Amino acid sequence: MRITDDPSTNPDDYEFRHRLRVRFAETDAMGIVHHSRYLPMVEEARVAYLRHIGHPYQEVREEGIEMNVLEAWMRYRMPLLFDEVVDVHVALVGVERASFQMGYLLTVDGDMRATGVTAHSCVTPAGRPTRLPRWLRDMG
Amino acid sequence: MRITDDPSTNPDDYEFRHRLRVRFAETDAMGIVHHSRYLPMVEEARVAYLRHIGHPYQEVREEGIEMNVLEAWMRYRMPLLFDEVVDVHVALVGVERASFQMGYLLTVDGDMRATGVTAHSCVTPAGRPTRLPRWLRDMG
Amino acid sequence: MRITDDPSTNPDDYEFRHRLRVRFAETDAMGIVHHSRYLPMVEEARVAYLRHIGHPYQEVREEGIEMNVLEAWMRYRMPLLFDEVVDVHVALVGVERASFQMGYLLTVDGDMRATGVTAHSCVTPAGRPTRLPRWLRDMG
Amino acid sequence: MRITDDPSTNPDDYEFRHRLRVRFAETDAMGIVHHSRYLPMVEEARVAYLRHIGHPYQEVREEGIEMNVLEAWMRYRMPLLFDEVVDVHVALVGVERASFQMGYLLTVDGDMRATGVTAHSCVTPAGRPTRLPRWLRDMG
Repeated sequence: MRITDDPSTNPDDYEFRHRLRVRFAETDAMGIVHHSRYLPMVEEARVAYLRHIGHPYQEVREEGIEMNVLEAWMRYRMPLLFDEVVDVHVALVGVERASFQMGYLLTVDGDMRATGVTAHSCVTPAGRPTRLPRWLRDMG
Repeated sequence: MRITDDPSTNPDDYEFRHRLRVRFAETDAMGIVHHSRYLPMVEEARVAYLRHIGHPYQEVREEGIEMNVLEAWMRYRMPLLFDEVVDVHVALVGVERASFQMGYLLTVDGDMRATGVTAHSCVTPAGRPTRLPRWLRDMG
Repeated sequence: MRITDDPSTNPDDYEFRHRLRVRFAETDAMGIVHHSRYLPMVEEARVAYLRHIGHPYQEVREEGIEMNVLEAWMRYRMPLLFDEVVDVHVALVGVERASFQMGYLLTVDGDMRATGVTAHSCVTPAGRPTRLPRWLRDMG
Repeated sequence: MRITDDPSTNPDDYEFRHRLRVRFAETDAMGIVHHSRYLPMVEEARVAYLRHIGHPYQEVREEGIEMNVLEAWMRYRMPLLFDEVVDVHVALVGVERASFQMGYLLTVDGDMRATGVTAHSCVTPAGRPTRLPRWLRDMG
């Protein structure tokens, strides 16, 4: 496993915050957000983070780099409910030669709901490994 | 983290196999199955496993037990493509007093595509923790 | 069929506009938003509309009314792409004794992408038909 | 609107039946299958139908033809529940010069749950309109 640490539960340790609202379509018959639905939420936050730092993912893709997901891990601490406004705190938690990791903390009104990490590499549109762009290596 | 080990890559180490076919709706603009879509696949396999061992999840739910997801982790080794027939190999990889873990290996024609683990506890329909059913504790 | 008319393609004919951004997870292997993903988008817009008119859906639900979907229809005119900012224009296009219809127009930078209609009735949490709330009947 | 007729509620009027089981991930906080989740179900059935008639969709795609969705319409008659085994009855209900329509009837143990229609055209991978393949025109 690349992912071994649960990221910080302190919002101050994160560089960026993305806010979203839970959709009804994201809930399940337990009355809470289905566990698979957190990954699109943190992906939305990751894309917003890339835009925030001046590297919109669509531009990265147009330059011939896709950010592959190698691993994903979520820890569900307290449920998310329909219509809740969720703050997804985002941090770049590791940059290696050929991969990087992003950490996430999800809060609602300051209450912790979940943490997660995704590990990524870069690939060409044909799916071949390629090295990280310089701006990303420089952030390590 | 509860999940620390990547489960076996040998199908023979798994008790049960569930077969499914990739839906077009599960693909993304990279032309492969989106990483969030593996969790519903392993959930489908977990539900099939419970049916296989004589404890259909719907019966478990009607007895007042929901199986909460505490953590989920996936490792994406090779992409899954539209229309591929996926074997999801399932094993109970740990039973503790108040939680259990399930391991998964996804293969296509014997080729490894992904591994994953989910950690669960049991809760009442109102969301309160409750102990594991006896049949599950006895499997530990 | 209850739904027989394609709603207006003129944004001025709509009472309310909700803006959202396409998620990568909503795309498919054709490189565009999967057709099933428009329904959660218009649902998000419908929920935002209810909040806008002072009747947040979560409050409606807490008063014992669920808004069932009887029919849904979408017309896909031009594809939606990853990261596009979508304006979902919303209108109440019909109120009958026991049901109502909502119309939608999706635009990006003023260009039409899709239209749709959903037809709804009201049910109790147990799924039994119940009449529309007075405020909704009064909007007819 | 291209779609104007609700298709037959008699399973005998359909050429093909595809069976699937409701996933937990397809349910919502009303305890039933979310209305957006029927479209991937009927898409799965449409893909199975194409395989059944000797034209697997992946082969069609490799020949340079994508089947675009022009319109989709669903009528939700009775809810679908978690773990139910659903028969999706499929028929080609119309073939025109540049488009075709598929009709669907969803039943559980013979009880009708939903009907639907999707309208399609054919496009190249670049998204340009192209005519229907001959085998499809010949089915009209």
